[in-house]
Amino acid sequence: MTVASTTENTPLVLRNDRADGLSTLTLNRPGQFNSLSKEMLTAVKAELDAIAGNPAIRVVVIGGAGKAFCAGHDLKEMRANHSKEFMQALFRQCGELMLTITRMPQPVIARVHGIATAAGCQLVSMCDLAVAADVAKFAVSGINVGLFCSTPAVGLARNLGRKAALEMLLTGEFIDAMEAKAKGLVNRVVPADALDAEIERLAGSILGKSAVAIRMGKGMFYKQLEMGLAEAYDYAGEVMACNMMSDDAGEGIDAFMQKRQPAYKGC
Amino acid sequence: MTVASTTENTPLVLRNDRADGLSTLTLNRPGQFNSLSKEMLTAVKAELDAIAGNPAIRVVVIGGAGKAFCAGHDLKEMRANHSKEFMQALFRQCGELMLTITRMPQPVIARVHGIATAAGCQLVSMCDLAVAADVAKFAVSGINVGLFCSTPAVGLARNLGRKAALEMLLTGEFIDAMEAKAKGLVNRVVPADALDAEIERLAGSILGKSAVAIRMGKGMFYKQLEMGLAEAYDYAGEVMACNMMSDDAGEGIDAFMQKRQPAYKGC
Amino acid sequence: MTVASTTENTPLVLRNDRADGLSTLTLNRPGQFNSLSKEMLTAVKAELDAIAGNPAIRVVVIGGAGKAFCAGHDLKEMRANHSKEFMQALFRQCGELMLTITRMPQPVIARVHGIATAAGCQLVSMCDLAVAADVAKFAVSGINVGLFCSTPAVGLARNLGRKAALEMLLTGEFIDAMEAKAKGLVNRVVPADALDAEIERLAGSILGKSAVAIRMGKGMFYKQLEMGLAEAYDYAGEVMACNMMSDDAGEGIDAFMQKRQPAYKGC
Repeated sequence: MTVASTTENTPLVLRNDRADGLSTLTLNRPGQFNSLSKEMLTAVKAELDAIAGNPAIRVVVIGGAGKAFCAGHDLKEMRANHSKEFMQALFRQCGELMLTITRMPQPVIARVHGIATAAGCQLVSMCDLAVAADVAKFAVSGINVGLFCSTPAVGLARNLGRKAALEMLLTGEFIDAMEAKAKGLVNRVVPADALDAEIERLAGSILGKSAVAIRMGKGMFYKQLEMGLAEAYDYAGEVMACNMMSDDAGEGIDAFMQKRQPAYKGC
Repeated sequence: MTVASTTENTPLVLRNDRADGLSTLTLNRPGQFNSLSKEMLTAVKAELDAIAGNPAIRVVVIGGAGKAFCAGHDLKEMRANHSKEFMQALFRQCGELMLTITRMPQPVIARVHGIATAAGCQLVSMCDLAVAADVAKFAVSGINVGLFCSTPAVGLARNLGRKAALEMLLTGEFIDAMEAKAKGLVNRVVPADALDAEIERLAGSILGKSAVAIRMGKGMFYKQLEMGLAEAYDYAGEVMACNMMSDDAGEGIDAFMQKRQPAYKGC
Repeated sequence: MTVASTTENTPLVLRNDRADGLSTLTLNRPGQFNSLSKEMLTAVKAELDAIAGNPAIRVVVIGGAGKAFCAGHDLKEMRANHSKEFMQALFRQCGELMLTITRMPQPVIARVHGIATAAGCQLVSMCDLAVAADVAKFAVSGINVGLFCSTPAVGLARNLGRKAALEMLLTGEFIDAMEAKAKGLVNRVVPADALDAEIERLAGSILGKSAVAIRMGKGMFYKQLEMGLAEAYDYAGEVMACNMMSDDAGEGIDAFMQKRQPAYKGC
C-alpha cells in the first residue's frame, strides 16, 4: 500500500506499509534534495502521527527519493519569509517533528543513501537507529551561510562526543559514513547496493519482537536519559515490572523455556 | 581467605581477599550461568556491603564461575513468582545492588571471561572498570523473550552512545568483546589466557594508590556527572581542596618531589 | 602583535594577534612545564577576558612553550601554601578559567604538542576543539601523588566515556594521542611537524564564518547540553530564529543562492 501526503499534485512523502508491520516513509522532493519546507514538515509529521496510532505498524524506515537523503531546511522558503515569527514557527514545527520520532511507540530507522545536511543530519541523529550507505555524507552546514545549526546541535550533541559535534557545527565540514559510524551518528555502514538488505536485516530483527515490550522500552529509554542514576533505576525497575506482567513477557519466557517460537499478542 | 555467602550448601558467591587489598568475588551458580536470583542478589549485595566497610580492601574484582560471566535474572524464578509485587521487589533489589557498586569506596572491576547478558551485561556496565576476554560476548537479550531490558538500559545508556545502546536493546543481538571496547562498555580486551594477568595489571595500578584519594575521587566522579558544568566545578574544587589537606596528598607530593616512593596511610 | 602578561620579567603568557582574527596564547613557563601556578591562572584568565571582549578576534589557539603542553597545577606552590583556604581559592580560580573558555564567544582550540597532564589535560578537555601532535601524551596523574584529579574529572567525564575517564583517573596512566582521539579528548592527530599546518586548517575553516553565528551557536551549544530534550529544542529553536534574523544569515543565504562568497559584518 502506498499512501501519499501532499497539498499539491506530487506527494511530498511516500508511504509504504507492508503486511509484516514495516512502514517506509520516503521524503519525495528529489529536485530540492528533500528539503524540509513547512509543507514537508507537516506531511512527515502527519504520517508519523498516523503511524504512532496504528498498532499494525511495528517498525518505521525514513529515507529520501533521488540523490540526497535530506538537505535540511528550505533556504529559499526561509529567505522569502523573513520574519522572526516565521522562523520561530518553523523551528518549533521542526522540533516537534523530531520529538515525535522519539515519542512514538515504534522504532524509527534512518535509511541514509546520500547526503544528510543541516536539519537532514539532525533527522538522522534523532531517529532511534540509522543505517548508511558508504557513499553517504553528513554535515551541519548552516554555519556556511551564517546560520549556526542550533536545533541540529541538540540531536548531534546527544549522539556524538562534544568535541566531534562542535567540530562539525563550527566548520560545517562533511564527514563520511565510516566516520559517522565511529562517532556514533549511525549504527551501520554498508555498500550502497547492500543498503536495503541491511535495513531489512535490522528491521527484521525488531519486527519479530513483542510490540508492548518495544513500546514500553523505547519510551522508558528516552525518559531515563534525563534522570539521575538512582531515579532512573527506580523508574526503569517500575517499567520493567509492568512489562513483566504483560501477556507477551509470560509467553516469551514460556516459549524460551519450552524451546519454541513465541506467539506475541502485543499486550 | 575464601568466605562463602549462601543460604544452601553451595556458596552462591565465592570471596577471596588478598593481603595486598584485592578482593575477588566470583558468582558461583555455573549450572545456571550465574543468573541473578533473589538469593544471588542478596549474597552479592552482602559481600559488597561488607567490603565497603572494610578499609583493608582496596580494589574489587567481580567474575563468574563456569562458562558464563552472568546471564542476567533467573527466568525460571521470575516465571514461578508471577506477581507485580515480586517483580517490583526484584528490580528494586537489583537496582540497589548496581547503585552499591558506584557508591562503595573501592573501585570495582568486572572480569568478563564469557557471555554477559541482560542484567549480566548491566552488571558490566555498572562496574567502574571492565576487562574482557576476546571470547566474551555481550547482549541485552530480554527483548527476545518479550521483556525490554529497562534496568540494563540505565547502565548501558550511560556507557555507550544512544544509538549503539538502542540497537542492542531493540534487537537483543550479541556484540563481541572488541565491539564492546569500541563502544565503551569495557576498558580492555585480551586473549582469554591473558585475562587474569591483565586484571592483575589494572588492579595493581590502583592498589598502590592512596585509599583516601580513591574514595573521595570515586564518590565525586559519579556525583558530578549529574550536575551542570558550573555546579560540578564548584563541587569538584571543594572535594579536591579537602583531598589536598589529607596526609596522603602531602606525603604523595613530598615523595614525588623527593623522588621516592610514597608511604600512604589512607587518610 | 605580541602582548605579554606577567608580574615578573618573563611573560607568563605570550599572546599573538593576527590581522585575520586568530589569537594565539602560549603558556610560557617551559622550565616548569607550563604549570598552572596562581599567577599563570591569573595571566591566562586576563588574556581570555580581554579576547572575549575583542570582536576583532575570531578564533583562539592555546599552546605551550618548550617540551610540554601543560603539566597541571604547580605542586611546589601547592605544597608551600598548605591551607584549605589556599586550595579552595586555587581550584575556584582554575574552575573559573575553565568556564571562561566555554563562555567566551570565540572558539578555543588546544594545540597539544607535548604532554598534557592533570589540569593540563583538563585544559585540553575544556577547549572547544583540540589538535594533537602524534607524540603528545595525556594523563590525569594526580592520583600518583595522593590527589585524585577531581576538577580535571569534570572536563574529562564530559568528553570521554565514563569507563575510559575512570580508568585514566584511577590509574594515572598515560594514553597516547591516537587513543585520545579515539576516546574523544582531541579532534585531530597529526605528525608533530604538521601540527601548525593542521591548526591553520582547522582555525581557517572557522575564521571565514559569521562571528555572530559562531557566538550565538557556541553559547547555545553548552547551555542546551544541560537541558532535557524538549527544553533544549525550545531553546535552540529560539536562538536559531534570532540567528536567522541577523544580517549575516541573510547575507550568507543570499550569497549561497547567488553562488558568491558572503561578506559578513558580524551582526
